[in-house]
Amino acid sequence: MSDTTPARVDELADAAARAFEQTVAASSGERARWLRAIADRLDLHADDLVRACGPETELGGARLRGEVARTTGQLRLFADVAEEGGYLEAIVDHAAADATPPRPDLRRILRPIGPVAVFAASNFPFAFSVAGGDTASALAVGCPVIVKAHPGHPETSRLTAGLVASALADVGAPEGMFALIEGHDAGLALVDHPAIAAVAFTGSVAGGRALHDRASGRPAPIPFFGELGSINPVVITPGADAKRGAALAEGLAGSFQLGTGQFCTKPGLVFVPRDSEVARSLPGLVGSAPHRMLTDSIAAGFSRGLEHLLSVPGVTVVAGGSEAPAGAAAPVVVRTDVAQLEKNPSPLFEEVFGPLTVLVDYDDEGQVVGALGKLEGSLTATLHAEDGERGPQLVGALERIAGRVLFDGWPTGVAVTWSQHHGGPWPATTSQHTSVGASAVRRFLRPIAYQDAPSDVLPAALRDDNPLGIPRRVDGVLEVPRRA
Amino acid sequence: MSDTTPARVDELADAAARAFEQTVAASSGERARWLRAIADRLDLHADDLVRACGPETELGGARLRGEVARTTGQLRLFADVAEEGGYLEAIVDHAAADATPPRPDLRRILRPIGPVAVFAASNFPFAFSVAGGDTASALAVGCPVIVKAHPGHPETSRLTAGLVASALADVGAPEGMFALIEGHDAGLALVDHPAIAAVAFTGSVAGGRALHDRASGRPAPIPFFGELGSINPVVITPGADAKRGAALAEGLAGSFQLGTGQFCTKPGLVFVPRDSEVARSLPGLVGSAPHRMLTDSIAAGFSRGLEHLLSVPGVTVVAGGSEAPAGAAAPVVVRTDVAQLEKNPSPLFEEVFGPLTVLVDYDDEGQVVGALGKLEGSLTATLHAEDGERGPQLVGALERIAGRVLFDGWPTGVAVTWSQHHGGPWPATTSQHTSVGASAVRRFLRPIAYQDAPSDVLPAALRDDNPLGIPRRVDGVLEVPRRA
Repeated sequence: MSDTTPARVDELADAAARAFEQTVAASSGERARWLRAIADRLDLHADDLVRACGPETELGGARLRGEVARTTGQLRLFADVAEEGGYLEAIVDHAAADATPPRPDLRRILRPIGPVAVFAASNFPFAFSVAGGDTASALAVGCPVIVKAHPGHPETSRLTAGLVASALADVGAPEGMFALIEGHDAGLALVDHPAIAAVAFTGSVAGGRALHDRASGRPAPIPFFGELGSINPVVITPGADAKRGAALAEGLAGSFQLGTGQFCTKPGLVFVPRDSEVARSLPGLVGSAPHRMLTDSIAAGFSRGLEHLLSVPGVTVVAGGSEAPAGAAAPVVVRTDVAQLEKNPSPLFEEVFGPLTVLVDYDDEGQVVGALGKLEGSLTATLHAEDGERGPQLVGALERIAGRVLFDGWPTGVAVTWSQHHGGPWPATTSQHTSVGASAVRRFLRPIAYQDAPSDVLPAALRDDNPLGIPRRVDGVLEVPRRA
Repeated sequence: MSDTTPARVDELADAAARAFEQTVAASSGERARWLRAIADRLDLHADDLVRACGPETELGGARLRGEVARTTGQLRLFADVAEEGGYLEAIVDHAAADATPPRPDLRRILRPIGPVAVFAASNFPFAFSVAGGDTASALAVGCPVIVKAHPGHPETSRLTAGLVASALADVGAPEGMFALIEGHDAGLALVDHPAIAAVAFTGSVAGGRALHDRASGRPAPIPFFGELGSINPVVITPGADAKRGAALAEGLAGSFQLGTGQFCTKPGLVFVPRDSEVARSLPGLVGSAPHRMLTDSIAAGFSRGLEHLLSVPGVTVVAGGSEAPAGAAAPVVVRTDVAQLEKNPSPLFEEVFGPLTVLVDYDDEGQVVGALGKLEGSLTATLHAEDGERGPQLVGALERIAGRVLFDGWPTGVAVTWSQHHGGPWPATTSQHTSVGASAVRRFLRPIAYQDAPSDVLPAALRDDNPLGIPRRVDGVLEVPRRA
């Protein structure tokens, strides 16, 4: 154990505040350089990182190697986002002396919000941890970052943090730009610190709720961007089941067992037509070997969740569910009927983190729409359907509860692109801004408008000659300069 | 008194939720039609509105007439924003089958968040009230609105609400799209209602904090967009004072006494060089006649605030401050020294809502930068300076605490434009999004990404042929179609 002391948290937060005084005005080129230096450093040490992480997480080498690559790709994407400059939402309105009343010259831009506290997740020891998407998107816009390490992979966290810090130092980033802390109480002290301007979190509903309430309850509340929990409903229509039920069962089996089910986007609740091919085929595709979970407490939570589910009358195990040693879990499929959902929203509508999925038999679309209307928010909602089966009622019900709506795919696997988005109504996330995808930077920005500012005081992005060559809205019209 | 009953709040919120099922998919043309119909209806009845409002607020006819025009202009701006479509932040990333790993087709857009609760302000009975900017920006993106009327102008609120409702009905907007409620407890019930997806508020720090905590404390927290309090610091440099001190005193006198000082953007704390022309000239420009305030409680708050200020040693009245009858206030200027700010952040750094400003004598820029560093957030910060006096330290200190930074102007008067912005760090506002200006709509939107969606399921804004002709980012490149 090496919990960070309260005094040290203070020091680091104060150092971040001092760094912010410099980075608030850092150029996009400078910020892009930081991110690419980190990416290069991590790539260079990928073998060390994977070696450190394997024993801590029990995730396989191939998966971990892929995740390092995803993490460095993510850092480079945010470098591109910083340089492209559209994220600044620059708006220039020239003065209109003849308007009634006369209008001043007014120019708006997004600026960094201040030092950010990042709470690392357990299940992506690279991509949602020390140098993950939250850190990358905060640094991209000039916000210093203090990461609270996840206790599930302390050595990996320290190794990553060392690489990040040395890469930043080597390209001349200000001191105090990045730090790692450890320990539950240190995390709370960080959220409370007046220098911290926003919190990003990926984890459980209980942990996220506690931090959300703490951030909201400060004398000066700060935004809390959490990704908490998600059941990720899937609807399979009669047409899809009839045409490709066996293939759908294979896809589902792969998706819910992937990474021992330890993904935020694991499909947890699957609506299937009564007497479906999917339900017939799935049991033969479920593994029986238990696998070690990320942490003992995650394994214990999985057991409790399964037990809770099976306490509901009419909920039965139809595949898997073999005994597992402490700290491990074996895949399991349970089955019930749509009528049970109505009667037992708890626990049937609650996420069980791990290799478990719930099949729900239904008779008609109305029942599915009704059940979806009672679900809390999810990161994803998926529809497998044939032409003529994607009615506005059903699609509308999926849209209302989710941040990403998938058609004929599986929700695990989150591509990092400009359009990607990882969030949804509570408890999927707490806000209208989310991690993953280029727009994740918006969480760490706030608008400033300049009124009648002399040109030499304006940020470069707002000067008349647009020296950065970025997209801007000028006198109401969006303009995109041609790139050389 | 006609407080809305809890049962009625329930009914209205449920009706808003039903309306939302239709308006979530309303076209931009449809939404623009709603807003323009409301604007036309209010313009048509401007005389009635001004007549109703005068006795309730003691604001003059010219001011009120101007405010109605501002309100209808604002409604029409948001209609333009809806039609232009850039606010949707549409992003299209085509599938990349040869990427590692292969990428699906992914398209992101902003969608309306759900029914919005709007808490009307006292000091703008039109522009920040029933049909004000919060209502306009929510309707613009398809969110039904329930307004909690401010008790300071109940008849004006009811009259406005009737006009809004009938205009919406006449152009075929869904029932439940708009409603008015009255009473403190009804407002709380509204914030608690599960159908409400966001809260917008303009008012006091105490009231705003209570609602913020309530919205954050719900079983499913919702975003609270509040505009709470702002001292709006002004810095006058030695050069500016020497060159145009008398004119600056005139500008300041006009700005802090405007509307009996009842503006969120009133300059409340003015740093002047020791022995300034501004301080010499100002007393002669301060009126002595008391004026009735918007409400008795605002007048009482003003008296208490002034008394509290004068309890600080070294704080003296230098102009105005004549006795006022209950419910009224007379303009007053108090003066102190920068050393006092250090010793008495409370109450010297707190907003006193009404016709009062505090002159603070300083000796050098370092003192001003130091004092600004201790201020809480403000809507605005203003610098009056000559060339060579706008150093990065001073400008940086102003940027850090404010949402709008003005040069050689006065903060009262908020032009409604694309670039306008009305917010700042806590307690100016609670969030990274603010009322006033085109981007106010962002408060009532959340992202949805569509993965591999068939074209007939996609919102029009995301279809390959871009039938709405809106700006979009396609495969990483921002594209602005030419308008016919």
